Amino acid sequence: MASSIARFTRRDFGRAVGTGLSLSLGSRALSSPRQSADEGRRIGYAIVGLGRISLGHFMPACKMSKYSKVIALVSGHRDKAEKTAAEYGVSTGNIFNYQNYEEIAGHKDIDAVYIALPNSMHAEYTIRAAKAGKHVLCEKPMCTSVREAESMIEACKTADKKLMIAYRCQYEPTNLHAVQLIGDGKLGKIQVIESANGFNIHPHEWRLDKKLAGGGPLMDVGIYSLNACRYLTGEEPVHVEGYSSVVDHDGRFEQVEENLSWTMTFPSGAVAACTTTYGANTGGWCRVHGSKGSLTLDPAFAYQGIHLTTDIRGEPPVDDPEQAKDPAQFATEADEFAQDILQNRSVKASGEEGLRDMKWMDAIYKSAGITTA
Amino acid sequence: MASSIARFTRRDFGRAVGTGLSLSLGSRALSSPRQSADEGRRIGYAIVGLGRISLGHFMPACKMSKYSKVIALVSGHRDKAEKTAAEYGVSTGNIFNYQNYEEIAGHKDIDAVYIALPNSMHAEYTIRAAKAGKHVLCEKPMCTSVREAESMIEACKTADKKLMIAYRCQYEPTNLHAVQLIGDGKLGKIQVIESANGFNIHPHEWRLDKKLAGGGPLMDVGIYSLNACRYLTGEEPVHVEGYSSVVDHDGRFEQVEENLSWTMTFPSGAVAACTTTYGANTGGWCRVHGSKGSLTLDPAFAYQGIHLTTDIRGEPPVDDPEQAKDPAQFATEADEFAQDILQNRSVKASGEEGLRDMKWMDAIYKSAGITTA
Repeated sequence: MASSIARFTRRDFGRAVGTGLSLSLGSRALSSPRQSADEGRRIGYAIVGLGRISLGHFMPACKMSKYSKVIALVSGHRDKAEKTAAEYGVSTGNIFNYQNYEEIAGHKDIDAVYIALPNSMHAEYTIRAAKAGKHVLCEKPMCTSVREAESMIEACKTADKKLMIAYRCQYEPTNLHAVQLIGDGKLGKIQVIESANGFNIHPHEWRLDKKLAGGGPLMDVGIYSLNACRYLTGEEPVHVEGYSSVVDHDGRFEQVEENLSWTMTFPSGAVAACTTTYGANTGGWCRVHGSKGSLTLDPAFAYQGIHLTTDIRGEPPVDDPEQAKDPAQFATEADEFAQDILQNRSVKASGEEGLRDMKWMDAIYKSAGITTA
Repeated sequence: MASSIARFTRRDFGRAVGTGLSLSLGSRALSSPRQSADEGRRIGYAIVGLGRISLGHFMPACKMSKYSKVIALVSGHRDKAEKTAAEYGVSTGNIFNYQNYEEIAGHKDIDAVYIALPNSMHAEYTIRAAKAGKHVLCEKPMCTSVREAESMIEACKTADKKLMIAYRCQYEPTNLHAVQLIGDGKLGKIQVIESANGFNIHPHEWRLDKKLAGGGPLMDVGIYSLNACRYLTGEEPVHVEGYSSVVDHDGRFEQVEENLSWTMTFPSGAVAACTTTYGANTGGWCRVHGSKGSLTLDPAFAYQGIHLTTDIRGEPPVDDPEQAKDPAQFATEADEFAQDILQNRSVKASGEEGLRDMKWMDAIYKSAGITTA
């Protein structure tokens, strides 16, 4: 199966000439085939945390990637790690646990770590990896507090290592097509954005434990809406305000919010209204309305099947369903960071980008009267 | 063409057993065919203001109604009024202007007035009608301030006349189907509601004149979302908060807001995020998400074509497009109020109901830093 990067360059609507946030990716994606010096070299990832996203998505994605491979595993479960190592051809000498994690420093074949642990562990394992001389691709949310995010950035800077936050959607062609349309002014001036992302959570998930998760649905899935409003407009909010609530007093929401709605206003005057919940399957979608027309991403944030449609005055309707199947978005993500490392490029979804979301989430939580770390 | 009322009773999903706000209508709609004493009697409406909504919707609707007829006209344009009178078989003796409006008191064939004037005139012409002994069906928004709304209610109470605010959607079968599903618990506990309503306004509309309109898109079209969140949940918010902005500095928005986003929280814990705009065609739609499933009304507030769909775990999907064509919703509205009068029923979309929205809009405006009347 062709990688998403290759497919990306074939798309016919000129995404390469992206604007704002998409520009850097667009030009990089096109230039990468010419970087012949890097052909054949793959970045070796140590997978930190063997949960659903690692085993079900990121690691299978590495198999179909062009620049990435799984070279090491970090897990608290030796049996699980050995079984997984056998499946991925990882040598048993490259299996680590959370105690001897620093030993990755001595393994030159490990270029980077992919951190897919509960949120509260992101900062520690990023900082330990940086100190061990490894680049870091860290799952979203970046961490559980602004302070942690700053210390992660500082640690990677000090170690001269790259840090990327796993914002899949910032590299996903259908979302980038939306960014492109907006950047090209097809929608006119952006006035209003609506977005939602939520699901009905099972009890006993670690996500319901505030110490592990840092927060509720906002940090877990609402962050997609927040991030999308920012990359779609290319603007930072001037104001955010949130309200939270609990409907279900069934024990699930003793530590984190169940529902949260928030508004954002942007310097251009665009306003956004977003919702997130752990109590209902709202799907994850986004609508952007400008003076000339509207676009809808629905789904907007899924692992596959992202679908862009438009309704723009005087323009033929766009109907752009994502073609690639899961885990292609993860392959793109892994390969983009791999190329950042191989070509010493700046990282698009950088630590600073993650920090911005951490700051906005902190502001939303504070406005909703929710204590943050 | 069959009236909406007749069609309503034929629908097969048991709307008659509505809950909350729909209950009164459901039982009334079913009982009306048995009110044989009223058969053949039509309420005579004096149409106050011959603008688009009167000429294009309400008056044609009276022609297809069962209990309503146009009996008089009130207009500042004698020529237009005479032409319209001829078309509707209104005697020239029943044409009034804004100066001699009180003379409707002496015309026993005028039972009620339908007020379709700029918002700032709603209070005055409601109060003058009540004093002239006429029932009042007043377009939304009820008026331009809480104080005016209270005086309208007081005037109608003093005169022992009925007052209805023209909330079409509270009488529209597809919206009522949604109310029914929620009331029956099909969606589980309601967690999150999203709604938007907006359009790109032409310059020089009276709606952009704050003295005439009272406010911007919130009062004009956002009110549909606000009202829907209330009738869909059957709850009054415990908190509202809004943010407004102007993107287009093209002269249109010197007096009223262009964009407004707001959040609401309800006693049950449900949260809502809504947007309204005069700068983009967002359409008017609503999504309600509960623990068991979701429903979408899209469009939710249009004159025709309202479309309800559901996605509920373990339930067959509902796909309920409104069958009736414009101006059927106006016929229902006219006939419901006509029956309120004929049968001396309480009014569902009462002045008190309009007052509640006025109070919430006032609170949203105040939170957004917008001065209200």
